[in-house]
Amino acid sequence: MHLGEVSQYIDAHYEEFIQDLARLVRQPSVSARKEGMEECAELVERMMRDAGLSTKILPEKEGNPVVYGEIRSDTSEKTLLFYDHYDIQPPEPLDKWVSDPYSCEIREGTIYGRGVADNKGNTVSRLKVIRAFLETVGSVPVNIKFVVEGEEEIGSPHLAPLIKENKKLLSADAAIWEFGGTDRKGHPLIYLGLKGVLSVELRAQGATRDVHSANAPLIPNPAWRLVWSLNTLKNERDDILIDDFFENVEPPSAEEIEYAKAIPYEEEEEKKDLGLEKFINNVTGVDAVKTLLYKPTCTINGLLTGYTGAGSKTVLPNKAMVKLDFRLVPNQMPDEIFGKLIEHLRSHGFKDIEAVMHGSTEPAKTPITEEFVQTVIKSAERVYGKRAVVYPTSAGSGPLHLFRNWLGYPIVSVGCAHEESRGHAPNENITVEGFVKGTKFIAAIINDFGAS
Amino acid sequence: MHLGEVSQYIDAHYEEFIQDLARLVRQPSVSARKEGMEECAELVERMMRDAGLSTKILPEKEGNPVVYGEIRSDTSEKTLLFYDHYDIQPPEPLDKWVSDPYSCEIREGTIYGRGVADNKGNTVSRLKVIRAFLETVGSVPVNIKFVVEGEEEIGSPHLAPLIKENKKLLSADAAIWEFGGTDRKGHPLIYLGLKGVLSVELRAQGATRDVHSANAPLIPNPAWRLVWSLNTLKNERDDILIDDFFENVEPPSAEEIEYAKAIPYEEEEEKKDLGLEKFINNVTGVDAVKTLLYKPTCTINGLLTGYTGAGSKTVLPNKAMVKLDFRLVPNQMPDEIFGKLIEHLRSHGFKDIEAVMHGSTEPAKTPITEEFVQTVIKSAERVYGKRAVVYPTSAGSGPLHLFRNWLGYPIVSVGCAHEESRGHAPNENITVEGFVKGTKFIAAIINDFGAS
Repeated sequence: MHLGEVSQYIDAHYEEFIQDLARLVRQPSVSARKEGMEECAELVERMMRDAGLSTKILPEKEGNPVVYGEIRSDTSEKTLLFYDHYDIQPPEPLDKWVSDPYSCEIREGTIYGRGVADNKGNTVSRLKVIRAFLETVGSVPVNIKFVVEGEEEIGSPHLAPLIKENKKLLSADAAIWEFGGTDRKGHPLIYLGLKGVLSVELRAQGATRDVHSANAPLIPNPAWRLVWSLNTLKNERDDILIDDFFENVEPPSAEEIEYAKAIPYEEEEEKKDLGLEKFINNVTGVDAVKTLLYKPTCTINGLLTGYTGAGSKTVLPNKAMVKLDFRLVPNQMPDEIFGKLIEHLRSHGFKDIEAVMHGSTEPAKTPITEEFVQTVIKSAERVYGKRAVVYPTSAGSGPLHLFRNWLGYPIVSVGCAHEESRGHAPNENITVEGFVKGTKFIAAIINDFGAS
Repeated sequence: MHLGEVSQYIDAHYEEFIQDLARLVRQPSVSARKEGMEECAELVERMMRDAGLSTKILPEKEGNPVVYGEIRSDTSEKTLLFYDHYDIQPPEPLDKWVSDPYSCEIREGTIYGRGVADNKGNTVSRLKVIRAFLETVGSVPVNIKFVVEGEEEIGSPHLAPLIKENKKLLSADAAIWEFGGTDRKGHPLIYLGLKGVLSVELRAQGATRDVHSANAPLIPNPAWRLVWSLNTLKNERDDILIDDFFENVEPPSAEEIEYAKAIPYEEEEEKKDLGLEKFINNVTGVDAVKTLLYKPTCTINGLLTGYTGAGSKTVLPNKAMVKLDFRLVPNQMPDEIFGKLIEHLRSHGFKDIEAVMHGSTEPAKTPITEEFVQTVIKSAERVYGKRAVVYPTSAGSGPLHLFRNWLGYPIVSVGCAHEESRGHAPNENITVEGFVKGTKFIAAIINDFGAS
């Protein structure tokens, strides 16, 4: 049995793998401020070649380099693609880290460093699995492709045209997405979808300059205009009121609901952690999980107008703006929702409010009923020896739709993080055990997909 | 006729007066940053003494010095008090000034400098009238008191206790307030009242920290809470909706309405200047004047929450705040309105919104029917040779109520500014002619009040 040899190889060599992870972590790659992007892409490409793949940098006019790698199977026509990213969130605030975020220090079986959970650990783990197959079996059971981009943490602004221009190169029969891990009880987590996002700025304009607030009886106040317009978008029961907003929403299937019900969401821990007595509308239990996964949102990310310093100032501002994001569920398309927002503002008497789109991604998910999903679930339960927790979709967002909706194959997201991995936060970490198990899980997926 | 001699003296000596004004302007006195306050108070006290008054600095524990001066009349028991202030607005933006704001440059009959209109010009003018009486007549026709404070531009935060402790010292039969001038056609402007102000900050709190906006289906958003609560305060027709907000409003008298109708408000110039097609609710003409003077307001001065930089950020903020000011009309008391605001928030389901009072002043006005008002109107029409424009009240605010409501005498506001004097703005100015006429007007008021 080939997988046994591969697993043994992983057990024998995981300390070398972690040294490679440390090399990757030591190379900063903060996309938000273009820090070390070229260098990190080169390092990823070298690691891919060391793993046995042939590589190339996909042409990117404006964005950070996208590293592509592939290796053909001798035995299978099927192709499995891995989507990862080498860029990281800024490590700040630095004083909150116990060890240097770029040092990749191991303490008591846990590896600390910016990017170890999101997503350098998974990137290294997956490349090492390819090496393991080559060193033991001599070949890979399916054709393998890697796409490792450098702008995931800033919303992948340049990925769409690249996918369009490389549809053939990026074709596959299935794909593994970049994130995942285990819950507090060690159950492997499997994610099948992401919400879409529409980021919008609304701007209101009053007089040509700020005036003294004594003039308020006569001079229109753009801050009030903005407040009134926002109030027409969502009510106190958290219902989104935009006309036809829910028109194309595809409700979750019966299977999805069943899987969602089985998610052991730790709501009391979550509330305690955030100092909350209750969630919105006091939802709890399965309803909280369903709300989190299936409810589209309209969120105020930021609001600014006038004087916001200490004390008071009798000013009537002439400008006001709000930043909003909408999280969208299948099949709400961002362009369609943006159009409905503009029409809603117009028809509710707010044609003076300017709407600007700052970015968007479509929602995407893979049905639980897909054979590849069932294969991954079985691989997970065999490797971890525990029931897999399957999220039919998730509350987050990402460029999943570019692959799922444009290229059409099933995509499952797994990884080697855990519930306390602190992605995006100080002391980001994965455990050595989680890394090793996650690596074996990837080996099992490749093996089982080849055999399926 | 004594007044003729005084007027001749003013004509003969106004250039010296303006040199004294220049001395006062050259002394910075920016209360917002405590710049030159002691020095300016000393200079004002010296100028008072030079004018012939006995002076003292009223004890002030925390605030800037308040300069008091008085001179008794040989012929009258009546007392006229002048309220002025020596503090100024910051001169910034400096690059918008044609000449140094502290240079007091005269160009083509106009005196430019920070404070010449608000309120150093009036302060010097009034002191010089006392000197003129002493130099010509040998005494003043009524007892004279001056209170010149140093915190008017920051809301007079320490004046109330000082008034309470000095009620006898500050007693009088009538007072002249600090601001006024002429309109574009040279009509003297007379103001009889000010609105009150209540400055409030509303704060909403969500989770113990900002979270990723993917959590929006469950985690309460304080920005939305604030928007919804604000929406209950005022509707799109600009109606204030706070329960019982208008309960104690005293409507203007029939006489006030008649005077208000006679105000030649230049609404087209105002709209053009501010780039507006129309005022709120499209009010125009006499309605615009009545709205400006008699409508209480609820104004958003500032709003802040979450991310307000470039582009977008998928954050769900945990704090949001709004700064509001309410302009109040007789007899809306700030404490009462603050209580109603809190009760309104509570009864509308927003007891989670914290309300903090940043400052307040009561509304105050003197009835047109007061004999002193009629005396001033007649003095004005004689000096200027034109009909006086009487504002039964005004849209602005100030510490008028401390004198009017607490000490009880009639108060009229007049001065030597004009419609383009640009108080609080670059190139603040008064004309030499306006200064001379305004000085003669004060002499006439003192004279006529003594004779009445």
